[in-house]
Amino acid sequence: MIDAGIVGATGYAGAELVRLLLRHPDARLAALSSVSFAGREPGEVYGAYRGLCNLKCGTQEQVVARSDVVFAALPHGLSQELAAECFAKGKAFIDLGADFRLKREEDYKKWYGGSFSHPELHGRAVYGLPELFRSEYAGKKIVANPGCFTTAVPLALAPALLGGFVEPAGIVADCKSGVTGAGRTPTQNTHFAELNESVSAYKVANHRHNPEMEQTLRLLSGENVRITFVPHLLPISRGILATCYARLKPGAEPERIRAAYEKRYAGEYFIRLLPDGAAADVKNVRLSNFCDISLHFDPHDSMLIAISAIDNMVKGAAGQAVQNMNILFGLDETAGLTAVPPAF
Amino acid sequence: MIDAGIVGATGYAGAELVRLLLRHPDARLAALSSVSFAGREPGEVYGAYRGLCNLKCGTQEQVVARSDVVFAALPHGLSQELAAECFAKGKAFIDLGADFRLKREEDYKKWYGGSFSHPELHGRAVYGLPELFRSEYAGKKIVANPGCFTTAVPLALAPALLGGFVEPAGIVADCKSGVTGAGRTPTQNTHFAELNESVSAYKVANHRHNPEMEQTLRLLSGENVRITFVPHLLPISRGILATCYARLKPGAEPERIRAAYEKRYAGEYFIRLLPDGAAADVKNVRLSNFCDISLHFDPHDSMLIAISAIDNMVKGAAGQAVQNMNILFGLDETAGLTAVPPAF
Amino acid sequence: MIDAGIVGATGYAGAELVRLLLRHPDARLAALSSVSFAGREPGEVYGAYRGLCNLKCGTQEQVVARSDVVFAALPHGLSQELAAECFAKGKAFIDLGADFRLKREEDYKKWYGGSFSHPELHGRAVYGLPELFRSEYAGKKIVANPGCFTTAVPLALAPALLGGFVEPAGIVADCKSGVTGAGRTPTQNTHFAELNESVSAYKVANHRHNPEMEQTLRLLSGENVRITFVPHLLPISRGILATCYARLKPGAEPERIRAAYEKRYAGEYFIRLLPDGAAADVKNVRLSNFCDISLHFDPHDSMLIAISAIDNMVKGAAGQAVQNMNILFGLDETAGLTAVPPAF
Amino acid sequence: MIDAGIVGATGYAGAELVRLLLRHPDARLAALSSVSFAGREPGEVYGAYRGLCNLKCGTQEQVVARSDVVFAALPHGLSQELAAECFAKGKAFIDLGADFRLKREEDYKKWYGGSFSHPELHGRAVYGLPELFRSEYAGKKIVANPGCFTTAVPLALAPALLGGFVEPAGIVADCKSGVTGAGRTPTQNTHFAELNESVSAYKVANHRHNPEMEQTLRLLSGENVRITFVPHLLPISRGILATCYARLKPGAEPERIRAAYEKRYAGEYFIRLLPDGAAADVKNVRLSNFCDISLHFDPHDSMLIAISAIDNMVKGAAGQAVQNMNILFGLDETAGLTAVPPAF
Repeated sequence: MIDAGIVGATGYAGAELVRLLLRHPDARLAALSSVSFAGREPGEVYGAYRGLCNLKCGTQEQVVARSDVVFAALPHGLSQELAAECFAKGKAFIDLGADFRLKREEDYKKWYGGSFSHPELHGRAVYGLPELFRSEYAGKKIVANPGCFTTAVPLALAPALLGGFVEPAGIVADCKSGVTGAGRTPTQNTHFAELNESVSAYKVANHRHNPEMEQTLRLLSGENVRITFVPHLLPISRGILATCYARLKPGAEPERIRAAYEKRYAGEYFIRLLPDGAAADVKNVRLSNFCDISLHFDPHDSMLIAISAIDNMVKGAAGQAVQNMNILFGLDETAGLTAVPPAF
Repeated sequence: MIDAGIVGATGYAGAELVRLLLRHPDARLAALSSVSFAGREPGEVYGAYRGLCNLKCGTQEQVVARSDVVFAALPHGLSQELAAECFAKGKAFIDLGADFRLKREEDYKKWYGGSFSHPELHGRAVYGLPELFRSEYAGKKIVANPGCFTTAVPLALAPALLGGFVEPAGIVADCKSGVTGAGRTPTQNTHFAELNESVSAYKVANHRHNPEMEQTLRLLSGENVRITFVPHLLPISRGILATCYARLKPGAEPERIRAAYEKRYAGEYFIRLLPDGAAADVKNVRLSNFCDISLHFDPHDSMLIAISAIDNMVKGAAGQAVQNMNILFGLDETAGLTAVPPAF
Repeated sequence: MIDAGIVGATGYAGAELVRLLLRHPDARLAALSSVSFAGREPGEVYGAYRGLCNLKCGTQEQVVARSDVVFAALPHGLSQELAAECFAKGKAFIDLGADFRLKREEDYKKWYGGSFSHPELHGRAVYGLPELFRSEYAGKKIVANPGCFTTAVPLALAPALLGGFVEPAGIVADCKSGVTGAGRTPTQNTHFAELNESVSAYKVANHRHNPEMEQTLRLLSGENVRITFVPHLLPISRGILATCYARLKPGAEPERIRAAYEKRYAGEYFIRLLPDGAAADVKNVRLSNFCDISLHFDPHDSMLIAISAIDNMVKGAAGQAVQNMNILFGLDETAGLTAVPPAF
Repeated sequence: MIDAGIVGATGYAGAELVRLLLRHPDARLAALSSVSFAGREPGEVYGAYRGLCNLKCGTQEQVVARSDVVFAALPHGLSQELAAECFAKGKAFIDLGADFRLKREEDYKKWYGGSFSHPELHGRAVYGLPELFRSEYAGKKIVANPGCFTTAVPLALAPALLGGFVEPAGIVADCKSGVTGAGRTPTQNTHFAELNESVSAYKVANHRHNPEMEQTLRLLSGENVRITFVPHLLPISRGILATCYARLKPGAEPERIRAAYEKRYAGEYFIRLLPDGAAADVKNVRLSNFCDISLHFDPHDSMLIAISAIDNMVKGAAGQAVQNMNILFGLDETAGLTAVPPAF
């Protein structure tokens, strides 16, 4: 059994890790830390977990000491020191924050306002989107677990860009997000009475995930990908729907594009490419690590519409982190992640 | 007082007309018809109206006989005969259906499968989007009341296209709709347990409102406008949010674009152009005839993002119909439409 | 025109007063105060009101100076001084807080922890539930506007208790509330992701409204009424449903009970007694000042089930306050309160 | 491995069984039947299941032939013949319908309008609420799986009644239900736009589960239990909250009552008795087989308030059915039912 620890166990991403790891066949929760709820069990913070986990939240140090793998669900900027410590001690480190996601320090500075305190570690980190970067995991012990939008959008677009079917610039990613993406801290925007019956965009063309999703697709395709990214907040708890629009290059045929997606994602358990005529729906992937993808074409304006749906807390955070742990430790990639999404 | 009648009074659009007309200062409900609920009062169908309207639903003939203005909330294809009858009798006719919206019969055939049974009437109908076509109402007694998406998208984009700031092709209109747009008849898609926590696209790049919104913008701008239109169904009751993406032409500056919107919509009570930094939200226009519009720019990929929010049942249907009645009868355009949208 | 002012205009109750008073035919908003949003217009706090009210929030003193009637939507304990000031200046005062609701100072001490700082004023205040205490308004200028539960439960039970049809003890009031009752300040309980898909009781048999609803029914019936009151928080924005259970006395017949309700509420515009077979629903009273009441009987266990539905922000707060203003100023009691509740 | 079959696999209860059985460690789905979706896989009906189950829906006969245990999720009245057939062939039969729940044929006639076609089988059926009737399973192969309300209410009240702490008559069970309890077929009541922001009672004191819950508590306590049962429909997908009010007998002390619950439910994995001060919440048991119970007391009116929360589709239907299968086949009672409920 792998001893798994969580730093920041009582935020939403941490809590979701608790849920998944409690039933993982090959790992066990070894230690938790929380600043807000020191000395408390997860079930005292989340009634759903009552009686199911008798670990009390301790310190970050305790987590490092007791774990083979450390999951960090921390505010941006706090992971680099912890990564260094884990690396020095030979522990695997999976960062659900953004500290290791951007390859270029100037991007990190611009969007997060910080600097690379351990530059040598960045080269040792793998970007943890297995379906697109599986070949890069060998020998890695630090994983930069992608964010939710930066999982959904690249998975929707990668095969089209890699196959040269669409223009790399002028792409639109119109994304719809559930409210758990905003975290546990109550704010005016997350107040039920404010969000109920509301739909609106936020951080329009100015969201930190914009450079990250462009980086992913640029690294894969070699093209200077430009995405206009607009996230919207919806009155649902979980889910990201990414509706991506890319201009078809002349001669790009729907059948060939579909075939490219099928080939690229063949054998990927967590990718469900929907049949022609169906449309991805966040409801169908809830509480699962699936990414459903549907392809649509607008012949009258030469547009590919690729829609992906994920659960932002699972494939967009904790589930993908467990998938990354499975890869690092040589387990079946689906271990602990096979729950059937509920139909309602 | 104007005597107003509603044909199809118990569907959602009809019921919303009932709500608005019951409190109109210059009109009164004179007659209602309903096939499904003949002999019943609105309050027997919608508990909210209990005790507030003692008209019983009768026949279409009774509505025509008793009304100065006939609102038709009928399935597509059933309005043309009724329009002819009203026209012959000198009654105003406001069609909430699609029969008079498309100017070209071939478009109507392609998207609705029907033909123009009274071609001469089409030239006598005005397309009832007052903020864009107010100059065309003179002498008209038939109004083709636009659909919900076809109100929201053109209002968001018209000033940019008219000013020549954006490319007319390659436009994306990513729209989010509340469920009342699907009507009162229960279906699997509108079942609470299926829609709750769901977000998905439907009729992707294949919705009947696509040619209608292109027609409006083509007529206004003279350009061959091409829009990739993707509607999404959300778990909210009311509202359309239209997030529209148009490529900026070289040299198009945000300040000038914003100024063009301000000028175009100056004096329009129902258009609220939001200040820089705010984003339109369907919650803020609920139960009102307002259309909130916000403008955003993505400099790194030269994109205008114009977002409009309406209540699909008010500005997208019944409210705009009342606004049209007000214009036809020379009333203040806001009569009966001044309720303050609830903050929560 | 009556000059109306609101102290505490940016909380939920204050904001709802703004909405209603902006369209009142015989009153106008004269001044607003807010500690949190000094210098701001309501539309800067609530996007729904954007452009509809150009008053800026000032001080409490300004409100008193400029108003004929002062509405106070303040935290408990802060109204008594203000009431005294308004009283001294001859201004009408309508308190949406609890300071004047409980007649016995010991009850106020026990449940609110404060004391009566101006005991003489308590005798001069009327308890503002017009349908039950209309005879007591004469000469009053201070109104203790009831809370939401304390409006819904007494309206459901009063005729049965007054008629001697049910036992005064052992009553159960199982209430379901929308989240706006908890106010605007974001908390963990009001976070969308925590409340969504949640239903739970709170302050079980320990809520401040318990003595208030018992007081109302005791004063009316002369009986020592005992109610077990359990409020529940639901994932809806507005509404109170009060399901009240009272044991039928021997010989109490449904027909006579129904007749007593009809007689008691005859002529009350805001009470809608539903026909046999229908059940009150919060949806049907949304955004209105109506209180829908349905009566049901369980013959196999001799129980009356009286269910009332109100909008907690209207009949349960701001709407009733406007109704009270109308009475104080001799206006039609329904002035400004005739909007038709939306059917969906 | 146990071969499990489902008759009526595409309704909500059947679909939930599919979800649970697909991941059961000791059983496998052997056959499914559906009248509405013959020849289709579950993933074609419920997008969530896409790719996860390649069984096609066949006939009832095929299910019986291929299964060791047959789960029947059929409309009331259709299970008796099937039970007889399974019994004759030595197959275990678990009925999620009501045909075997009521012991007295006159009750069945009164509430369901049918008769006992195989009276001898009724004596051979166990009422499948394991926490209350575990001693009665020996030798049984037919299980009458209880309904949702009839699981939640008896679990909340049984220890109090068995201990003689409360009066057996005059009990109130005010229940709140999610919409999946109404089944998959779309109706006006389940339309999103009608249910959203709605809360109302239905079948007030006239619901089929009333005699069933009284029967359970009568059989256990020997008392003539009388419950006024009022179900309410809420805008949530899953969950039953049962708020039960029972008059305390003189001298009944909270500590002793709590101790009786602790003793009665000691060792019951699926019962979580909440600590003093906490209140049961449907959110905390979602997608799990747990029944959370909280106890509250109103000293001023001598009332016990016992609140239970279950997921109506799991502990209230499919999960309890799997629990029953586990018992019949000698498995660990929690097999396949250990998923951690999501915190959000």
